[in-house]
Amino acid sequence: MSHAMTLQPVMIIQAFSFKNEKDRLFGMNTISPLRCRTKVARNANMEKLRNGYLFPEISRLELEHIEKYPNAKLISLGIGDTTEPVPEIIASSMANYAHALSTADGYSGYGPEQGNKALREAIVKAFYKDLQIKDTEVFVSDGAQCDITRLQVLNYRFRLADARYLNTCNARSKGIPLLLGSEVTIAVQDPSFPAYIDSSVIIGQAGDEGGSGRYGSIEYMKCGPENNFFPDLATTSRTDVIFFCSPNNPTGHAATREQLELLVKFARDNGSIIIFDSAYSSYVQDDNCPRSIFEISGSRQVAIEISSFSKFAGFTGVRLGWTVVPDELLYLNGFPVIHDFNRIVSTCFNGASNVAQAGGLACLSSQGFKAVNSLVDYYMENANILGEALSSVGLQVFGSANAPYIWVHFPGSNSWDVCKDILEKTHIITVPGSGFGPSGEEFLRISAFGHRECILEAAARLKTLFL
Amino acid sequence: MSHAMTLQPVMIIQAFSFKNEKDRLFGMNTISPLRCRTKVARNANMEKLRNGYLFPEISRLELEHIEKYPNAKLISLGIGDTTEPVPEIIASSMANYAHALSTADGYSGYGPEQGNKALREAIVKAFYKDLQIKDTEVFVSDGAQCDITRLQVLNYRFRLADARYLNTCNARSKGIPLLLGSEVTIAVQDPSFPAYIDSSVIIGQAGDEGGSGRYGSIEYMKCGPENNFFPDLATTSRTDVIFFCSPNNPTGHAATREQLELLVKFARDNGSIIIFDSAYSSYVQDDNCPRSIFEISGSRQVAIEISSFSKFAGFTGVRLGWTVVPDELLYLNGFPVIHDFNRIVSTCFNGASNVAQAGGLACLSSQGFKAVNSLVDYYMENANILGEALSSVGLQVFGSANAPYIWVHFPGSNSWDVCKDILEKTHIITVPGSGFGPSGEEFLRISAFGHRECILEAAARLKTLFL
Repeated sequence: MSHAMTLQPVMIIQAFSFKNEKDRLFGMNTISPLRCRTKVARNANMEKLRNGYLFPEISRLELEHIEKYPNAKLISLGIGDTTEPVPEIIASSMANYAHALSTADGYSGYGPEQGNKALREAIVKAFYKDLQIKDTEVFVSDGAQCDITRLQVLNYRFRLADARYLNTCNARSKGIPLLLGSEVTIAVQDPSFPAYIDSSVIIGQAGDEGGSGRYGSIEYMKCGPENNFFPDLATTSRTDVIFFCSPNNPTGHAATREQLELLVKFARDNGSIIIFDSAYSSYVQDDNCPRSIFEISGSRQVAIEISSFSKFAGFTGVRLGWTVVPDELLYLNGFPVIHDFNRIVSTCFNGASNVAQAGGLACLSSQGFKAVNSLVDYYMENANILGEALSSVGLQVFGSANAPYIWVHFPGSNSWDVCKDILEKTHIITVPGSGFGPSGEEFLRISAFGHRECILEAAARLKTLFL
Repeated sequence: MSHAMTLQPVMIIQAFSFKNEKDRLFGMNTISPLRCRTKVARNANMEKLRNGYLFPEISRLELEHIEKYPNAKLISLGIGDTTEPVPEIIASSMANYAHALSTADGYSGYGPEQGNKALREAIVKAFYKDLQIKDTEVFVSDGAQCDITRLQVLNYRFRLADARYLNTCNARSKGIPLLLGSEVTIAVQDPSFPAYIDSSVIIGQAGDEGGSGRYGSIEYMKCGPENNFFPDLATTSRTDVIFFCSPNNPTGHAATREQLELLVKFARDNGSIIIFDSAYSSYVQDDNCPRSIFEISGSRQVAIEISSFSKFAGFTGVRLGWTVVPDELLYLNGFPVIHDFNRIVSTCFNGASNVAQAGGLACLSSQGFKAVNSLVDYYMENANILGEALSSVGLQVFGSANAPYIWVHFPGSNSWDVCKDILEKTHIITVPGSGFGPSGEEFLRISAFGHRECILEAAARLKTLFL
């Protein structure tokens, strides 16, 4: 999720094409003489990634438009990036912490990889009161996206280990249960945030994409207006891991308590692990939509929750998040998942920046919490303005009630075409729904992150376009 | 690398033991009834990790000692953690940046995942002047340890991909070259920083450890006084990846120009990729010891460099580092490694904290650079004090001339015994050399990070002990 800097590599990758399948596999292209290459084979999983990562592609679209219309007043409602300043009390806390690093008393070096105890305790108090979560179950991270990959690494391993085990021990002939030898399977909401699938592709769990936009080893749980954005679990195959985001990015749908109860029951019946992404939980307005999976009884045995200060406190650049792994979540052999996650965090990560953690602690003070919630209210008012404008011209609008995203239906249209058409005619950047999965086709995601005057202007332009 | 917070999990893991090998594999232990477990198999690679990660184990030793001798004045020369305040000019820059986040002009959200352009340019100017490194080849990270894992993920994949390719396409029967199907192999200096091996074990590349302290798939490059801490390359097997740290942690040896020329030639001849860890490069005093692998001609085609602000500027808690991937580094098929690394950074990481990056930029200003180098001088004077004290009592001392570590030889001794004996008699924490690999046996690593009065006191106690 970034800006101009990421554009170049995307274009270079696209320009680097092999003449045919044989060349692609054995490198008989003419880019460089053989003597200049290493003998290290490329990770073939990387080749399976569809084009560039979605958000750099959107940035490229934006840049091209700016070149074409240098004088247009472009409004970006594309990448969901916060725009409003961090509340003063929180910025000051970070500033004070940073400044104190120059004093003997205020200096600190390595902190615990799991995060500072005071912050872990404050997270429990702010988000998991009465939910039986302990501070030792909270792992502070540098953002939810980074923990998605660490969880993939955690999950990933058993497949390789199994494959090796099967090879070395002839386990199959000894009648080892198939589960042990099968590939780790993953389910995602369709549409969903692209990092779940892309990190899964890189890790090698996604299988092949046969041009359909779907990877063979991923279970796509269709979520649309026809099923109130909740998958038909009766027709959903069992997977080891279920990624579930609520409020959902991109649809903006917050799952109801009844929906999440069904999900937890499904996971318990199947022995699956839910990775619940609650990065937008602070935007939930509806009391019947839980802000945490741990509000659902029975979830502690089947769920991990990843969350973030990014959209809650405008920390997209400051980088701070957390993950909750309950003690009761166990692998098939009875071993607690939390111990392996702790080991991965200790070995592969060295903790979030101490300055960011000081900021996180300030967010959770009573004054900071109030200030941060005003920010959330501001973006929700934006969502309301955009949602009403689009509804008023007869478009079918979803999301916006419990999330900073508006999910607009354009029946029968190609979502990239709609996105480009809107850009051409109104100078507004949006994100085509198909970028979030095959079932995102015909939809557009419009972000409510923006300065109020930009949101009002965008609402006016869109109304004019569609009236 | 942390403190009390990490102790608990290590102890829990040790307490969780299976009755026998069968139980270990199939989970027939009695920890929890089957109905409470998921059906997800544990990552078997995690079981291959030897005990806890080294540094949490050292912390546990420290904690036990404090409980036993609550009134002793413990001096920690164990974990290599910086102790001196960040220079005022740098802390102020971070504070100003953090405070400006509360203003409309100073606020910023997502930055480029690769790091801010100004910082990337400053890194080139400060560390790679005249070395042909471009700012687009520099990726800012949240620390070298985190990038070690991202590089493992980058490297790892091809093996799995190959395994799947071999299975699905019957490539073997079609005469595909063996390299494509072979496991990715890794070489490390022995002794070396444990994260290289531990992350490799988690990723599943290390093979089995048969009780010898050596993993079957890792090439251990013995580095000791007998070979001037440089491996005998004539007897070193070809590997895909060579981790090489200079100045080395733990031995403190900085490789000479001639040694690095041999290393680069070896990598070029074998088509290997060197991952050069220069986290301690600012401690190099000797002009004949390069501070970057890119000082060596021909390295751009075979090397990646990882580095850090941690030990250079006391940023162990602030979290900032960088990795250089040259455009000319190519896979066997001619594809540039930099594009895949860029994609992994974009998908699995969202950039270092913007406040930390502001601090990094201040470190590289002319005034900041001077201040930071005074810090380095301070720790080097510590190293000198400790090295002289230990030499004066007849011990054989290595390192300390170009690194903040002293590597002391205790011929014929078990290094854990020496470490515990010193702790018991002097209340000084050190790290047993065997924690860094089998060839670290008989050695002790003593860190020079500490307040001067502690270092002087430690030197006096050690002299008394060994006189």
